[in-house]
Amino acid sequence: MKAAVVGVGLIGGSFALALKDRQICSEVIGVDNSEKNREKAVALGIVDKVMPLNDVIECVDLIVLATPVDSLPTLAVKVLNKVDKQIVIDMGSTKQELAEMIQQHPKRGRFVLTHPMWGTEFSGPEAAVREGAFSGRTVVICDKEKSDPDALAKVEDIYTKIGMPIKYMSSEEQDLHTAYVSHISHITSFALALTVLEKEREEDHIFDLAAAGFESTVRLAKSSPETWAPIFMQNKYNVLDVLREHIHQLQIFRRMLEKDDVQGLTGMMQKANTIKRILK
Amino acid sequence: MKAAVVGVGLIGGSFALALKDRQICSEVIGVDNSEKNREKAVALGIVDKVMPLNDVIECVDLIVLATPVDSLPTLAVKVLNKVDKQIVIDMGSTKQELAEMIQQHPKRGRFVLTHPMWGTEFSGPEAAVREGAFSGRTVVICDKEKSDPDALAKVEDIYTKIGMPIKYMSSEEQDLHTAYVSHISHITSFALALTVLEKEREEDHIFDLAAAGFESTVRLAKSSPETWAPIFMQNKYNVLDVLREHIHQLQIFRRMLEKDDVQGLTGMMQKANTIKRILK
Repeated sequence: MKAAVVGVGLIGGSFALALKDRQICSEVIGVDNSEKNREKAVALGIVDKVMPLNDVIECVDLIVLATPVDSLPTLAVKVLNKVDKQIVIDMGSTKQELAEMIQQHPKRGRFVLTHPMWGTEFSGPEAAVREGAFSGRTVVICDKEKSDPDALAKVEDIYTKIGMPIKYMSSEEQDLHTAYVSHISHITSFALALTVLEKEREEDHIFDLAAAGFESTVRLAKSSPETWAPIFMQNKYNVLDVLREHIHQLQIFRRMLEKDDVQGLTGMMQKANTIKRILK
Repeated sequence: MKAAVVGVGLIGGSFALALKDRQICSEVIGVDNSEKNREKAVALGIVDKVMPLNDVIECVDLIVLATPVDSLPTLAVKVLNKVDKQIVIDMGSTKQELAEMIQQHPKRGRFVLTHPMWGTEFSGPEAAVREGAFSGRTVVICDKEKSDPDALAKVEDIYTKIGMPIKYMSSEEQDLHTAYVSHISHITSFALALTVLEKEREEDHIFDLAAAGFESTVRLAKSSPETWAPIFMQNKYNVLDVLREHIHQLQIFRRMLEKDDVQGLTGMMQKANTIKRILK
């Protein structure tokens, strides 16, 4: 099997490595708008070679779209327009806009919507990870009934070989749940970084006192705005809903602290502790 | 050298292990209100034996206070009342109330205020960590000019042997900076857990979609309310100040998202990214 990976950054680059390392593909060809990224991807051995998008489609069996989510809807249509029996997958964190754009496309069956739940706070080809990427994490496959059975089976097989348990849901459900467990964490982390940068002028202290707590909570604030702004925009209503609830919880916490309500604070923290049970 | 550790939980227990492992102390005696904790600490080999607080002081050279911060001010005075040449240290996350309580004590010089910037989200003697605790993290020593030179030198020597770089500041400064880089992270994490618990009723999804992002951001929400409620109360004004700023940042983010202000969102995230530079 041969694959093309469009967007050879953190996610696409790591996926290209996984396809080769797990012997799923004999050749992986990179496609990227940025010349620098194309050169890096070849130099780092992430892809075997690079080609322009228009030429690559007829050379491969699988096309992996790993670009920022705002580019995915139009990119998906352009690729489907040229597809015959090839399979196309995306790796985006949001699905509804993409699903809507390809909904009536005659080749819709060749597309499998996937969201492998893995990432780091870094970006670009040099952030691609060989060890520890994807494996053991869940991959969400959306609207599976809209994909051709052979395409779906092949994609399930690929993710299984990579070591990712598969979860099925609709695009709507995926965008809702992802707002809860991924998107809000990023907003919180960005806002926490801004809070500390705003409040703490003596930068030495931030570094020196960066106990494990702060470092892990603020880790996601290093994430790329180019990746995340489109995700927040595409998932705007779900994200706003969760964000409003989060601000509300912080306001309750603040009011209890202002009123010296130790019992109330303790109760809130005890309830928060139940996240243990869920995350185990 | 012999030491007594008062409060053999996560911090006290890990410190007891460090004192023995680094051959700083030939004997470490545990003191704890809870019979269960005393039994566990002996059974787990964290302390050599246990004794009541009133009897232990004359048997040791160093007394380590590792109880929740609300108990520290009175405990410190009671211990200092019985101290002759022994050295007393605490490990609390807040300092101003404690410093005020012992300020005029004739034995104030025997006390060294210390905050080793290490911890995990777990608690109790069974959470005590042998490998990876303390070493490489910063320890803050407060108001060092109020400690006797020999006591200060000895405590500096102990922390150096444990592998902790020392930073000096006043109690006021320490409480302010710790609100920024530690206390607010905990509140954010508690509130994030509550948000997700509130919004996400299908618990399977929380688990399955718990990408690395959510898990690391919410980790601190597993922390003990018994430890953290007193910290927030004792550092109330600093914590409220930072919490208000954090809510403000989230509100700006929300408003930009509501208005589709992609440029504004991107700008905020780019600014947040600069935390990279500070954290290294």
